[in-house]
Amino acid sequence: MVKFQNPDFDEEFDRIIEEVKTKILPTDEEELKGTEVKQELEKRVKNILKEYPGLKYRFLGSFPRNTWIKGNLEIDLFILFPEETEEDELERIGLEIGRRILDEREERFASHPYVHGKVMGVEVDVVPCYELESAEKIKSAVDRTPFHHDWVKERIKGKEDDVRLLKAFLKASGIYGAEYKVRGFSGYLCELLILYYGSFKNLVKRACRWRRGLVIDVAGEKEYFSDNVEALFVVDPVDSKRNVAANLSIDSMAKFVEKCRDFYLKPDKDFFFKKELEICFNLKEELKRRGTQILAVIFERPNIVEDNLYTQLERAKSKLFEFLKANDFMPLNAGYFVSEDKCVLLFETQMREISRVKKVIGPPFEEWVHVNKFKERKRPYRAFIENGRYYAFDWRKFTTPQQAIKHYIEQSPKSLGKNISQVISSYELLENYDILNLKLPGFEEFLVDFLKLKG
Amino acid sequence: MVKFQNPDFDEEFDRIIEEVKTKILPTDEEELKGTEVKQELEKRVKNILKEYPGLKYRFLGSFPRNTWIKGNLEIDLFILFPEETEEDELERIGLEIGRRILDEREERFASHPYVHGKVMGVEVDVVPCYELESAEKIKSAVDRTPFHHDWVKERIKGKEDDVRLLKAFLKASGIYGAEYKVRGFSGYLCELLILYYGSFKNLVKRACRWRRGLVIDVAGEKEYFSDNVEALFVVDPVDSKRNVAANLSIDSMAKFVEKCRDFYLKPDKDFFFKKELEICFNLKEELKRRGTQILAVIFERPNIVEDNLYTQLERAKSKLFEFLKANDFMPLNAGYFVSEDKCVLLFETQMREISRVKKVIGPPFEEWVHVNKFKERKRPYRAFIENGRYYAFDWRKFTTPQQAIKHYIEQSPKSLGKNISQVISSYELLENYDILNLKLPGFEEFLVDFLKLKG
Repeated sequence: MVKFQNPDFDEEFDRIIEEVKTKILPTDEEELKGTEVKQELEKRVKNILKEYPGLKYRFLGSFPRNTWIKGNLEIDLFILFPEETEEDELERIGLEIGRRILDEREERFASHPYVHGKVMGVEVDVVPCYELESAEKIKSAVDRTPFHHDWVKERIKGKEDDVRLLKAFLKASGIYGAEYKVRGFSGYLCELLILYYGSFKNLVKRACRWRRGLVIDVAGEKEYFSDNVEALFVVDPVDSKRNVAANLSIDSMAKFVEKCRDFYLKPDKDFFFKKELEICFNLKEELKRRGTQILAVIFERPNIVEDNLYTQLERAKSKLFEFLKANDFMPLNAGYFVSEDKCVLLFETQMREISRVKKVIGPPFEEWVHVNKFKERKRPYRAFIENGRYYAFDWRKFTTPQQAIKHYIEQSPKSLGKNISQVISSYELLENYDILNLKLPGFEEFLVDFLKLKG
Repeated sequence: MVKFQNPDFDEEFDRIIEEVKTKILPTDEEELKGTEVKQELEKRVKNILKEYPGLKYRFLGSFPRNTWIKGNLEIDLFILFPEETEEDELERIGLEIGRRILDEREERFASHPYVHGKVMGVEVDVVPCYELESAEKIKSAVDRTPFHHDWVKERIKGKEDDVRLLKAFLKASGIYGAEYKVRGFSGYLCELLILYYGSFKNLVKRACRWRRGLVIDVAGEKEYFSDNVEALFVVDPVDSKRNVAANLSIDSMAKFVEKCRDFYLKPDKDFFFKKELEICFNLKEELKRRGTQILAVIFERPNIVEDNLYTQLERAKSKLFEFLKANDFMPLNAGYFVSEDKCVLLFETQMREISRVKKVIGPPFEEWVHVNKFKERKRPYRAFIENGRYYAFDWRKFTTPQQAIKHYIEQSPKSLGKNISQVISSYELLENYDILNLKLPGFEEFLVDFLKLKG
C-alpha cells in the first residue's frame, strides 16, 4: 500500500486548516449569545424548580463542551429526576417544565417526549431524564447523556476545535448525525474519535485504512477486529456493552473512509463545506439516452417522526426493489425522497418490457414423483428436458415494471410499513419523462444524485 | 414410490404387444428378399476375393442377427484384412471391392472410408476392417464389430423380437441411433440392454427408475453407480474399458426414462409409432403472444459429414447462446435446423431491448488500490458505494440481441467451428415474424417443437 502516501500531508493540512477554522469556529458574538441564553435559562429553570423539590438541572451537549460549529448553536437543558419517580410522572412534569421555560415550543420525542423551542432566538431542548448512579442501569437512552458529558467534558479540553473540524468534514459529506435518514456519526461519536486518535489530522490518516469490523475501545485505548461487527463498533466508555456507532451504516463508514483518503492525498478546504449542486443537466436527454424505465410512486407523507418514516421508506423501497428483481425487470437502483407533504419512492429498471413467456425450472428426471407433478401443472406449453432436468415455458404475470409495482402496492400494502400502508392506497405512479414534472423542492438535486450524474 | 405402480402392466402389455409386432416385424417377403440379396452378395464377393488371397468376408449387423425392424433392411458386408495390412492399403482395396460389388454406390466415412450402395434395391454397406485376435487390440472402432457380432449372435436367439420392440420404441421417440444428431441408442446397445434385462417388458419396468451414473456390466451380470459417469455406462462385453452408451446424451437417457414411465403406467401401441405432427398452430399469433425476440441466423450448409456438422452447430449454438446470456438478453432457448443446403441457428430471448445503462460491480471499500483503479476508469457516470462496495453505471455495448449476434458472428467467427466459420460470413439474420417466411421443408415442424407448443 506504499502507493498511497502523501509525505506532504501534515504540512498541507496545517496550511489550509487555519482558514477552515475561521469559517467553522463560532464567533465571539455567537459564544456570547450562548452564554446569555444559558444565564436566562438558568434563571427560568431555577425559578420553576422551586416548585419541584428533588429535581435538578444540567446543561449538557456541545454547547457546554464547546464543540458546536458555527451557526449550529443549540442548548440542551436536562431536568434530572430521582430514580424512584414513576415514568409517566417524569414525562408529565418534564413536558410541563419545558413548556414553561421555552418560547415557540413544540413537543418532540426521543426516548421520552421532550420539548423543543427557542429562547432569545436560540434553539433549546428541555429533556427530562433520570439521575442514576451508573450508566449501566439506565432506563432509556437519554439517561446516559449526563454520563457521556462527565466522561468527555474534561478530557476534550484543548481538542474542541478538532471535534469541530470533524463535524464540519462530516456535514459536508452528508454523514453527520445518527438519525435514520443519515445513519452517520453522532456528535458524541465525533468526540470519542478525536479523543481516541488524538487529533482530527491523525484520525484522517488512520481512517484511510479502516476496515469493516473495526472495534475501537476508547476507554481501553485499543482497537481490534470482530467478525460480529457489520461496520464500526465504538465501545461506550460509560457502558462497555453499548456501541456508540450503532447507527452508523456501512455505507456512511465507507463514505467517510473515501473522503479521508481523498483529503489525505489532496488536502483542500472544500472538504469542509457542502458544495452547492449546480444543475446543468438536460435531464430529459439523460433519461432518453439511458433507455431505462424510471418509476415514481408518490403518496402523502404520513404524519410520524422522521426516524420512523425513513425506516418505513427504506423497507418499502427494498420490498418493491426485490419484487422488481424477482420479476426479472433488472432494477438498477431505488431510492426515496421526502418533501414537506409528499413521499416519493423511485425505481429505475433496465427493462421496459419483457416477454410474456418465461422459463420455469423443474426437477431432475430421476425424481419421478416431482417430475409427474411438474408435468401435470396446467401451462400453455409442454414440459421439456434440458441437461437431464425438466423445464417448462409459462406465462409471466407482469410484462412491465409498472404492472409489477401496481400489483405489489395493491396486493401487499401492509408489508410496506404500518403508516405507509395507510396512505399509499391513494398513490400516483409516474413513469419516465413524467417524473421531471414533479415540482417538489429539492427533487431535481435528488434525481441528479440518484442517476449518478457526474457533477 | 408406491405411487407409481401399475399392477396390470404385464397383462396390458401382453394384450397390445401382438398387434405392435405385426407392424414392426419384417414380413416373410422382406426376409426372403434379404436372403436373396445375401446370396447375391456372397456370389459377388467370393468372385472378387479370388483376386485377394488372405482376405475374408463376413455378414454382420442386424440382418444376420435377425434384429432389424420392418422397412429397415440393410445388409453389412465386412471385408476382413490380415492384421499386418497397411492402413492405406486396407482403405484402397476396401473401397475398390465395395465399388465393384455395389450398385448406386457412394463413399462414406466411419472410422475408415467405406462404400454404401444398393444391390437388388436393398441398402448395403461394404466395410473394410482388420481381422484381430482380441477386441482390445483394435485399430479403429469398426474392427470391434466382428467381436460384437460373435458375442451377441448366439445369446440373442429367442429374444430378437424384444430387440425389435425396443428399436421401434426408441425410433418413435426420436432417440434411436448413436450419431451426433440423435445422441441416442445404437443397435448394439439395444441388443445388450435386452440381453441384460432379459426382455423388453422387463427393461421398461427397470428403466422407469434409472438414474444418471448407472453402470451396466452386461458380461458381469451386475449394475452399480459411478460419479464419473454423466449419463449411462454400458460396459462392452468384448472390451471392458469401452462404454457402448458413450454417445447417449443425458437428455436422450432422460427421454427414454420418461417414455418408459408413461408406457408402464398406460401401455399403448402408439408408443411404437412416430406421431405425424399436424401443424394446426397460428404461428404468427403465437409469436405475438410470446412477446419474445426470435432470431434466425441462416447460412450455407458446409459440405461435411453429418456428425462433424452437428458437432459444430451445437458448438455455434452454445457460443451464441452464452453470449446473449452474458449480455443480459435472457435467452430462453436455442436450436439448429439443417436442410439440404441451409443451416439455421435459432435463438429466442426474453428481451427485445435493454437499457443502455448497466451496473458494474467494483471492489469493497477497504481495498484502496482497487477502489482507486475502479474510480479512475473512464465512465459517463460517477462510482458509488452500496452495502460497503463500489459500483458504477456504465454503457452497454449492445441494447438489442440482434446487435450482440451480429457482433459475435463478425468478430469471432472462428469460435463457431472450423467449417461453419468459412461459410457464415455471408449469413442472413431474420427476426421475429420474418422467420415464418423461411420456406425450408420441415422447418415449421422444427419451430413447433422449438416453441414447445402442445401437440
